[in-house]
Amino acid sequence: MTTRIVELRRGILKKNDELAAGLRASYAAAGVLVLNLVSSPGTGKTALLELTLKELRARGARAAALVGDLETDNDARRLRTSGAPVRQINTHGICHLDAEMIGKHLDGWEGVALGRLDYLFIENVGNLVCPSSYDLGEGIRVVLLSVTEGEDKPLKYPTMFNSADAAVITKMDLAGPCGFDRELALKNINEIRPGIRIFETSAKTGAGMKEWVKYLAAARGRR
Amino acid sequence: MTTRIVELRRGILKKNDELAAGLRASYAAAGVLVLNLVSSPGTGKTALLELTLKELRARGARAAALVGDLETDNDARRLRTSGAPVRQINTHGICHLDAEMIGKHLDGWEGVALGRLDYLFIENVGNLVCPSSYDLGEGIRVVLLSVTEGEDKPLKYPTMFNSADAAVITKMDLAGPCGFDRELALKNINEIRPGIRIFETSAKTGAGMKEWVKYLAAARGRR
Repeated sequence: MTTRIVELRRGILKKNDELAAGLRASYAAAGVLVLNLVSSPGTGKTALLELTLKELRARGARAAALVGDLETDNDARRLRTSGAPVRQINTHGICHLDAEMIGKHLDGWEGVALGRLDYLFIENVGNLVCPSSYDLGEGIRVVLLSVTEGEDKPLKYPTMFNSADAAVITKMDLAGPCGFDRELALKNINEIRPGIRIFETSAKTGAGMKEWVKYLAAARGRR
Repeated sequence: MTTRIVELRRGILKKNDELAAGLRASYAAAGVLVLNLVSSPGTGKTALLELTLKELRARGARAAALVGDLETDNDARRLRTSGAPVRQINTHGICHLDAEMIGKHLDGWEGVALGRLDYLFIENVGNLVCPSSYDLGEGIRVVLLSVTEGEDKPLKYPTMFNSADAAVITKMDLAGPCGFDRELALKNINEIRPGIRIFETSAKTGAGMKEWVKYLAAARGRR
């Protein structure tokens, strides 16, 4: 059975890669920067995104978000308070988003055209394992790690950290109470993904948001 | 391809269920209580287990642990300081433990016989989705939720919370700094799994450990 699983898995990922290539081409044609946010459940993807959408919109940028969860539309409702268009994807038991889900939800998104966006954020299902294998055609994959989770997570979930283009450390306001070892966390991230750009943020205090938004604008400008 | 995936998935889970039934029978024959600890990465499974092993051993109970991670043997090394026998399972990319992995690691565990144990703890891979589908033959499935993760996690990951026999809220010492809404968390857990036994703990202060260990001893006594 193992061989059949490996073969089928390869087939699934191959099909996903093909769809993702199509998405990547349509993002490029539309001139939209697409970011795929991945992390454990509860790391603060939605909180970071909420602030990011507000900051970008305040600067006149056009941003939208697709948010993945097994169930509930909590995140979409929360993010819509930013004023940005947000669409919830419920995976109903599936542990990751895939390119097909993204394509379907983009196609049927009333009033939202890729060509009219500067940024599209995709908030993946909270899971440090499975989403790493599924290319969504994104320009930038961002892995989040909160100070509450432990500095060893990059070593324990290397595929996710290795496949990321940027890392955001979240909940820096809790670094003290958590006894967060900043140097160790940075060392571990760099061990898995040498030279990766790392941001240290707090959605509560707004720390690090300026650098993060500046990075987004620069990445958008390079397209 | 979808039908083939569904069929194959069904086949994989059926095979796992059969192996798990065999494990369950061998646990019963040996008179060992087996617990499967599941949660997000960084919720504090290892910290809870570290304290639990120490407390149980201080009371003269015989406990051992199998710990699952994609990579590293950090957790096994950490848990061995309790004096209990601990074996690391590295899944190398697989997002959950399955019954076959457990069987293999129990078979080849030098010096550890199930019949000589009172408790066997299995610390699953940090993942709130995939481990829910894989029965390990455990007597009790324990889902952990930390106060840092957000009170909505039971609603977003219902299968995991619904399949659990007990819930442990961890890092209660951070409840204040996190603005943890205890009533809401309890309500959400109970909405998904009405009447489930819930423990509120802190590995830092030791809060809630007495009730937790008492629960384990009572569950062991009922076997």
